[in-house]
Amino acid sequence: MAVYQAMLDKTIQSLVKGKKYQSLKDVLITMEPADIAAVLGDLDEASIPLLFRLLPKETAAETFAELETDQQELLIRGFSDAQLRELVNELYVDDAVDLVEEMPANVVKRILAQADPQMRREINEILRYPEYSAGSIMTTEYVSLRPNMSVQDAITRIRRTGVDKETIYTCYVTEGRRLLGTVSVKDLLLCEDDDTPVSAIMDEHVISVTTLTDQEEVAQMLSKYNFLALPVVDTDGRMVGIITFDDAMDVLVEETTEDIEKMAGMLPSEKTYLRSSAWDLFLHRIPWLALLMVSATFTGMIITGFESALAAQVALTAFIPMLMDTGGNSGSQASVTIIRALSLGELDFHDLPRVIWKEISTAVLCGIALAALCFGKIMLVDRLLLGNTGITLTTAFVVCFTMALTVLIAKLVGCSLPMGAKKLGFDPAVMASPFITTIVDALSLLVYFNIAKILLPV
Amino acid sequence: MAVYQAMLDKTIQSLVKGKKYQSLKDVLITMEPADIAAVLGDLDEASIPLLFRLLPKETAAETFAELETDQQELLIRGFSDAQLRELVNELYVDDAVDLVEEMPANVVKRILAQADPQMRREINEILRYPEYSAGSIMTTEYVSLRPNMSVQDAITRIRRTGVDKETIYTCYVTEGRRLLGTVSVKDLLLCEDDDTPVSAIMDEHVISVTTLTDQEEVAQMLSKYNFLALPVVDTDGRMVGIITFDDAMDVLVEETTEDIEKMAGMLPSEKTYLRSSAWDLFLHRIPWLALLMVSATFTGMIITGFESALAAQVALTAFIPMLMDTGGNSGSQASVTIIRALSLGELDFHDLPRVIWKEISTAVLCGIALAALCFGKIMLVDRLLLGNTGITLTTAFVVCFTMALTVLIAKLVGCSLPMGAKKLGFDPAVMASPFITTIVDALSLLVYFNIAKILLPV
Repeated sequence: MAVYQAMLDKTIQSLVKGKKYQSLKDVLITMEPADIAAVLGDLDEASIPLLFRLLPKETAAETFAELETDQQELLIRGFSDAQLRELVNELYVDDAVDLVEEMPANVVKRILAQADPQMRREINEILRYPEYSAGSIMTTEYVSLRPNMSVQDAITRIRRTGVDKETIYTCYVTEGRRLLGTVSVKDLLLCEDDDTPVSAIMDEHVISVTTLTDQEEVAQMLSKYNFLALPVVDTDGRMVGIITFDDAMDVLVEETTEDIEKMAGMLPSEKTYLRSSAWDLFLHRIPWLALLMVSATFTGMIITGFESALAAQVALTAFIPMLMDTGGNSGSQASVTIIRALSLGELDFHDLPRVIWKEISTAVLCGIALAALCFGKIMLVDRLLLGNTGITLTTAFVVCFTMALTVLIAKLVGCSLPMGAKKLGFDPAVMASPFITTIVDALSLLVYFNIAKILLPV
Repeated sequence: MAVYQAMLDKTIQSLVKGKKYQSLKDVLITMEPADIAAVLGDLDEASIPLLFRLLPKETAAETFAELETDQQELLIRGFSDAQLRELVNELYVDDAVDLVEEMPANVVKRILAQADPQMRREINEILRYPEYSAGSIMTTEYVSLRPNMSVQDAITRIRRTGVDKETIYTCYVTEGRRLLGTVSVKDLLLCEDDDTPVSAIMDEHVISVTTLTDQEEVAQMLSKYNFLALPVVDTDGRMVGIITFDDAMDVLVEETTEDIEKMAGMLPSEKTYLRSSAWDLFLHRIPWLALLMVSATFTGMIITGFESALAAQVALTAFIPMLMDTGGNSGSQASVTIIRALSLGELDFHDLPRVIWKEISTAVLCGIALAALCFGKIMLVDRLLLGNTGITLTTAFVVCFTMALTVLIAKLVGCSLPMGAKKLGFDPAVMASPFITTIVDALSLLVYFNIAKILLPV
């Protein structure tokens, strides 16, 4: 795909350079807004407004919504008031809200000044809801029907008002703004008698969310139920908007990227990788790196505390990386599995006993297998093949026993910390590999040296 | 959500126990298929068929498609031929195909025997396509229109044939099975003249995939373009099916879970966490644990090779965990960021120079910051506060210089290995934290000891 886009970029850049505007128009009209936005993103600043003006009105609005923030700002700063008015009022309300949230204050002022009174009112209403809430990502452009309308009337109403709605396929039956039921265009079209009242064919068992429901939960509900859209009601049960599946898909992808970033010990970033400067990347990566580095003071202290033991048994040092890495890997396997299951809603805190039991059983199996393999490796590779005679049978036993215990500790820490974080209202994703590795490192070294002190002459 | 489900489970279990079938029916009819399936999953084996028979025909088929494989098998084994026939022919083709793929051979034989001839033919056609291909997840139930039909005719056709289609909202205009364009129900309904031919309002710039396109790419296209469905064409350009957004959402979630599992050094699993036995978890986790443990032989060898240096400078050992962990964390930050960007299609191999440059710049910033912090920590905490007099200014310098170099090495390895894997056609997700940690460990220890040998009296 990226190769294909590079080719297209080149074609369009040469058309722009050659001022072949009619050909450009002909090419652009065959393309999807998302692809036009990608092509615009790779043009030089002077060409972006030029190309944008060649787009038909509706495509222009959809393309604009797909652009990066800095390109949107560039375009708006170049617009006359009339051009801005045309664009803003062509946008879907939710896209207009996104825009207002991202732009600097003076640009926002211009946008709101050019918006139609109704558009402005709706933007301001949505802006009231907290970030990441259903209210903040919903749109107010849905089709509402009355229960006593006939199927025929309903279809007429859709035909008359549908053009500005984000979806017409699910319609909401309301009375005094209270949501009574939903009816799909499929139900309406497939109904054999045009005089049937909407109330007779509507589905009264409506699943809705409130304006304050978390956007991730909304996305998971849409994905679970395979709905095209979910209605949003306010705290008094009045319908205020809908969230469509395409916005839910975007939320799913964004929230997952955020989880993955947190799991790898980074602060979540809003920009794509190629659009982030080295300074951005630095700011997102340094906090956890620094914190985890400083917390390694504890492992350092443990090693210093057992310095004399290590001096007496130099062979022990060579196994520190293996024990630490295996502990880290075992812990992150458990924590990542649990974090993903929590974020998909497969697990909840009341599953903790089952989870702990499952991890203990798995840890015993993994621990025995690894200890056996490790014993074989030490005796055959390290002792025989590499001729490290400092390694006795007891040393091998100490290492393997520590290995098994480390796996157990790691799996227990790895599964319980994310569950605990969820219970306490923190984000479980933060309790992933890097954090758990640091804890498991310290614990496994303590086990290692204490066993060594008992069993070896130190 | 899980708490609410536990309550519902209890209610339904007591209704089943009390044989209150009419109340059960009344409760079930208010529920979504996905929720009914979740409730069924928590019932004892004897009650599942009992409850299932209370569902209306269409809900039964949709609920069946949402059940876990073992519950599906249980139900089918309890069905008479007539019951099985009714269910199978009510399923959407893509759900029927999923079923046939999961069931043991003797059950498959029964299913195909009860399927209508057309259903059987379509199942067999889809089964021909390779796993994870667009062909294997598509459905053949879409609305096709002819270009010369009027809008009126098109609507009539949708009303007549729509009931069995997976979506009616995007219709496909074909001639001799060649795909000419798409037209949405919205376009049809909003068209003011009923006599307009479909060819005049259809969108001819159709984005389609072939039967062999990877399912992940299909899901990303649906998400990028916000389409309800994508048409699938065969190698001769003839339309054979569609893939709808709800299946794409499932694919996105599944593929991401798979990526996350691989990144944490596990083999991807098809079952949810709570449904996996400890033995399943063991089998998915042990291969990488064992491989990475054995590969730690190299770090062990490096330490053994510098044993005399370590014996002379015991203070050096205490910093091994900090250097290894920081290296591992830096590397996994880079690799996880790159892997995610690759899987979202934001990066491609030709971006490698930009990526390397970005990572080098970030590494320099992180390296300097961490080295400075580390120097402060060693001199203030380790030397002054903890009174570790074995640490000289030179020791601190060796550690901090190694730290900066380790971060650089880790970021370079972390970004280039996933890009290289992608280029060679391997899955980049495998090149994540555990693998990179092992490589970075070995490299950073080599750097550490060699710098120590030059600067310290060993």
